[in-house]
Amino acid sequence: MRLRNKPWAQEKLESHPEHVIMKPEEMKGKWSQLFGNDQPIHIEIGTGKGQFITGMAELHPDINYLGIEIQKSVMIDVLDKIIDKKLTNIKLLPTDGALVSEFFEKGEIDQVYLNFSDPWPKKRHEKRRLTSAPFLTSYKDVLETGKEIHFKTDNRGLFEYSLISFTNFGLSLEYLSLDLHQSEMEGNVQTEYEQKFSAKGQPIYRCEVQFK
Amino acid sequence: MRLRNKPWAQEKLESHPEHVIMKPEEMKGKWSQLFGNDQPIHIEIGTGKGQFITGMAELHPDINYLGIEIQKSVMIDVLDKIIDKKLTNIKLLPTDGALVSEFFEKGEIDQVYLNFSDPWPKKRHEKRRLTSAPFLTSYKDVLETGKEIHFKTDNRGLFEYSLISFTNFGLSLEYLSLDLHQSEMEGNVQTEYEQKFSAKGQPIYRCEVQFK
Ligand SMILES: C[S@@+](CC[C@H](N)C(=O)[O-])C[C@H]1O[C@@H](n2cnc3c(N)ncnc32)[C@H](O)[C@@H]1O
Ligand SMILES: C[S@@+](CC[C@H](N)C(=O)[O-])C[C@H]1O[C@@H](n2cnc3c(N)ncnc32)[C@H](O)[C@@H]1O
Repeated sequence: MRLRNKPWAQEKLESHPEHVIMKPEEMKGKWSQLFGNDQPIHIEIGTGKGQFITGMAELHPDINYLGIEIQKSVMIDVLDKIIDKKLTNIKLLPTDGALVSEFFEKGEIDQVYLNFSDPWPKKRHEKRRLTSAPFLTSYKDVLETGKEIHFKTDNRGLFEYSLISFTNFGLSLEYLSLDLHQSEMEGNVQTEYEQKFSAKGQPIYRCEVQFK
Repeated sequence: MRLRNKPWAQEKLESHPEHVIMKPEEMKGKWSQLFGNDQPIHIEIGTGKGQFITGMAELHPDINYLGIEIQKSVMIDVLDKIIDKKLTNIKLLPTDGALVSEFFEKGEIDQVYLNFSDPWPKKRHEKRRLTSAPFLTSYKDVLETGKEIHFKTDNRGLFEYSLISFTNFGLSLEYLSLDLHQSEMEGNVQTEYEQKFSAKGQPIYRCEVQFK
């Protein structure tokens, strides 16, 4: 997806402060207060159009969700779904996922979802991959021991890379599927990319890894 | 493959002591002496008909190979290939791979190959899988820190299980391919099962894991 600067997107996001948090660094340590309850908080980095995170929020009213997406014009679609479905357990952060440790205290977040993250196949772009060591370091800054990253993708190279990156970083592999739609996983909520790629017959890879 | 008792197979193996070691426990600590040189020694457990290990022995004359196969009637085919190709850097052990620590001193072996190991899909048969913790313990008894297991299979369930088993055991993931024949691996020697399954269009999974 190309990054386009759309002023109307910025304006629309700003006009919904009940759903969209424009300055997440100001909420550090206060997210439960914002939701008004002590439910666990799960974040997704790179929501795209938000089918996954809004589907999860519907399915799990006992969990609070935060969606982080760097493209404001894409985040608009997530906002529309939230308004449409009248969801109260989800907020949106139109910002860069690299900055999570500026937004959250350690322990404030209970789980991180990464779905069909941009593969950045060139070796010199490795550090941009959301599963590279610098990103894992910032997830570790906000997740306590025992907490997990759940990752799915259709991209073989990114998945191979990520399994090595996770385990080298010291995360333990708790669950693995090399063909999710042939596996017995219950309650899988598909993302937009997942629907597109699995329709082409490509296997979807998925894993759960845990901080030790 | 079913285990059949074929007395002629036993006899034929016994009649080739230059290639077949009937009592490997008696060679513990003396394998380099047997080969007459100090080349590294790599073992394969479950050679099947031996296309892989004889191919490797041909390709790498600077390495000594030991093939372990529990079915004597199957090992006959490996013996025939060795005689046919006049290979001198390979010996056969018609025995159970579970016993490696009775055959080798720690450090005597430099690498373990597992190819298309029997999947034993039922949970109650987990301990029979060549990548289960009890087997990893015996490989660790013979391999020093830094030494590797190289594993390939077409079986998705076994591969998923094995990656979790390896990493839980503390082995580090050094290389991973989720579609070996689409990857840029040089010098891959195909096994009989590999040829059969990849001809059907199934992806071949491969990894290299290292003892720490
Ligand atoms: C390939 S799309 C997948 C979208 C969605 N997860 C799905 O599966 O349909 C990746 C998304 O991640 C977003 N993204 C990439 N890097 C990001 C970052 N550092 N922080 C937040 N979002 C990011 C992109 O803008 C894009 O919308
Ligand atoms: C599915 S076949 C694969 C053969 C060959 N590696 C290939 O890829 O074509 C598995 C082989 O492992 C052997 N095997 C199974 N368990 C074994 C054990 N504990 N020790 C030695 N061999 C074993 C079986 O007898 C069989 O020949």
